[in-house]
Amino acid sequence: MSAEEQTDPQRMEKIVSLCKRRGFIFQSGEIYGGLNGVWDYGPLGAELKRNLKDYWWRVMVRERDDIVGLDGSILTHRAVLKASGHEDTFSDPMVDCRTCNARLRADQLPEKNGAPQCPSCGGKDLTEPRAFNLMFRTNMGASEDESSVAYLRPETAQSIFVQFKNVLDTARKKLPFGIAQIGKAFRNEINPRNYIFRSREFEQMELEYFCAPDDGMRLLDYWLEERLRFYENIGIPRTKLHVLTVPDADRAFYSKGTYDIEYEFPFGVQELEGVAYRTDYDLMAHQNASGKPLEYFDEETKAKFVPHVVEPSAGVDRTLLALICEAYDEETITDEKGKSETRTVMRFHPRMAPIKVGVFPLLKNKPELVAKAREAHALLKSHMMTFYDEAGAIGRRYRRQDEAGTPFCLTIDFETLGERGDELRDTVTLRYRDSMKQERVKIADLLTTLLPQVL
Amino acid sequence: MSAEEQTDPQRMEKIVSLCKRRGFIFQSGEIYGGLNGVWDYGPLGAELKRNLKDYWWRVMVRERDDIVGLDGSILTHRAVLKASGHEDTFSDPMVDCRTCNARLRADQLPEKNGAPQCPSCGGKDLTEPRAFNLMFRTNMGASEDESSVAYLRPETAQSIFVQFKNVLDTARKKLPFGIAQIGKAFRNEINPRNYIFRSREFEQMELEYFCAPDDGMRLLDYWLEERLRFYENIGIPRTKLHVLTVPDADRAFYSKGTYDIEYEFPFGVQELEGVAYRTDYDLMAHQNASGKPLEYFDEETKAKFVPHVVEPSAGVDRTLLALICEAYDEETITDEKGKSETRTVMRFHPRMAPIKVGVFPLLKNKPELVAKAREAHALLKSHMMTFYDEAGAIGRRYRRQDEAGTPFCLTIDFETLGERGDELRDTVTLRYRDSMKQERVKIADLLTTLLPQVL
Repeated sequence: MSAEEQTDPQRMEKIVSLCKRRGFIFQSGEIYGGLNGVWDYGPLGAELKRNLKDYWWRVMVRERDDIVGLDGSILTHRAVLKASGHEDTFSDPMVDCRTCNARLRADQLPEKNGAPQCPSCGGKDLTEPRAFNLMFRTNMGASEDESSVAYLRPETAQSIFVQFKNVLDTARKKLPFGIAQIGKAFRNEINPRNYIFRSREFEQMELEYFCAPDDGMRLLDYWLEERLRFYENIGIPRTKLHVLTVPDADRAFYSKGTYDIEYEFPFGVQELEGVAYRTDYDLMAHQNASGKPLEYFDEETKAKFVPHVVEPSAGVDRTLLALICEAYDEETITDEKGKSETRTVMRFHPRMAPIKVGVFPLLKNKPELVAKAREAHALLKSHMMTFYDEAGAIGRRYRRQDEAGTPFCLTIDFETLGERGDELRDTVTLRYRDSMKQERVKIADLLTTLLPQVL
Repeated sequence: MSAEEQTDPQRMEKIVSLCKRRGFIFQSGEIYGGLNGVWDYGPLGAELKRNLKDYWWRVMVRERDDIVGLDGSILTHRAVLKASGHEDTFSDPMVDCRTCNARLRADQLPEKNGAPQCPSCGGKDLTEPRAFNLMFRTNMGASEDESSVAYLRPETAQSIFVQFKNVLDTARKKLPFGIAQIGKAFRNEINPRNYIFRSREFEQMELEYFCAPDDGMRLLDYWLEERLRFYENIGIPRTKLHVLTVPDADRAFYSKGTYDIEYEFPFGVQELEGVAYRTDYDLMAHQNASGKPLEYFDEETKAKFVPHVVEPSAGVDRTLLALICEAYDEETITDEKGKSETRTVMRFHPRMAPIKVGVFPLLKNKPELVAKAREAHALLKSHMMTFYDEAGAIGRRYRRQDEAGTPFCLTIDFETLGERGDELRDTVTLRYRDSMKQERVKIADLLTTLLPQVL
């Protein structure tokens, strides 16, 4: 059985349900019936997404000397996407059913007796396939005609290529150097599917790493390794990642080498990121179409040339989904009374976890406990995301944080107040999400204990 | 002379020029002639924007117990914007010129002999004014008709209202509590103007703070003060901010009170943020249109009601522009040879500055200096944005960082290597951007000296 076939729809259903129940992900416009293939991130999802994007920006831009950031617009000049080839070729083949007027993917039609037929009405009177462009189109300005057409960008990469010269002229970088961007992109997918994996509105984290022509193949392999390390650092083990060397026939014609980094989702092994050596195709296309030179002058060799580029292009939403799928776990545990129950726990890497620490006073009607808990909470709050909770039994509060993926919980109890002796005064119970082990820690040591684990 | 009239176009021109020259802001699609009213942020602009948004998120969400985040989609279900009133009323009055076909703002037509005329061709044969909707419209899915219309959101607020119940059910918050969001919004402005101040694609930082009906007016004033404090904390002095109490006649009909926070831009006093008490208008509109209850149950009073809301709504781009305008300064300085020159310096608050520290070896051809500089650089790099520069005279390197707004520069020189005695060994010159004062600081003390100033 191939990895592609190892799917687990039941597990996926549970994940989707938890995401809704705990406020990770909601359908956009849900109270109006929802917008197909478009999603909103709730409180926990928004934090998870921020943590993911911030970490990417930190290791890809801020901690490196050779990469700078860009934040380009979503609305895109038509000429940009004409030059990049998107206007003419970024399309799916579609047919219309003449019986019921449904529009259908030509390559996904069911057949009956060898003839394609409409899956909606069973009709066989279908038009010839026509190219249906996947870009969202709109009009800008007061008129609504061809002259005012603009597109929502189908990828963030193009604004990097189009601004290459501006960045080169202002950022004082020498080859090889990169321009990185995180931002939304839009594709009018006919069949959005697999939850947030293939949606119409999504976010990308893209790097265009420019280099001399003879440096491309080396950098392709360098970036593959860097990016694999990134996934490991956010909690996706190497064993769940697959590297597909895209065969010559499947690569874009201008690419000299492409790797797909794939992850074992419950719905199959699917692409998380592409790492592609795109040669000078993109810059050359824009140089030709715009008439503006997009060249680099090498001061040492005195050579002038259009740089080549290696592109590691990751999807925010699908990486977030991988984090969620990887984190989701159920285990049978036995409580102190010998009763067994199922514990659902999201085992996020502490660096990615939406909430880092839950802070609980043992009882909410003891002002001394509450005051002490508030104190511990305030100590941590400006350094990491915390959640203060005083409602319900401690066990239930732990379980709620397990489902949110909170790696640490603190309970402030009578020992903290010194009622069981001075030795335990100003200590709290630190409970670990994964092992459920508990230990006593001094309040004064909390920050130095926890902070290094969540950064 | 009113504040509105105190404009300084020359200063604004210099600011725009610096922003292009140093890589803060570029026009979108510039090499293709540009997209009117749409902008890209270059390396320095992208960092400045991140610092601004991250600080907002930190003080509005992460450091508070009563606010959670949301990250909603840009593509918006038509029913949402029908219910909110945007589809029917979010429009400008437009006329068409029958002579040259230009489409014109009806309220901005020049007059001749008392009759309105077309500013393009001078023609007087104009159509009656018609409402021109400011929302960007697109089609979603395979068909391109009325049934597939979706909009780019004209504000982030609506996704908060539409997801109110989902957040209430999952986030375990009691009134008063808020839902915060940062994200892009789009308005098809007929006349984008004042640089990035009024653009077609922009970013908002919005909070919807839900409360009991009798708590609204108090919270309106509370949030006005909180938001004024925010601007002071990012380096915009209270003296440059104006609070306009929007008069009854100018307020939206559902609002019981609105403040505009304005800033003295070089092109006039203009709004940065609106703080509005919107009553229960929005939730009620969506409850009525969707048929889904958007109510809150108060466990203490056993009352069930649709919450009221106070909305502090800030523009990312215009706040960023205020930061840039506030930071821009020119001063005449005299060098050691008695020659005077003009220094251009961006006096960003260190918390907002795109680059926190410039690190320079005095000479680039002395390996010991370079190695030591690299060492100091590595020490700081994972904690704050740094820029390593070894090219050109030290004075020129300082000036470049002045224009980038870098608050601190470090120079590694022969003293650092211990060549002028052991006392100065492993110390560097720390140079302050604003005063240009220099002092010796131990490398080992750099992090504790600088980090608190940039957080």
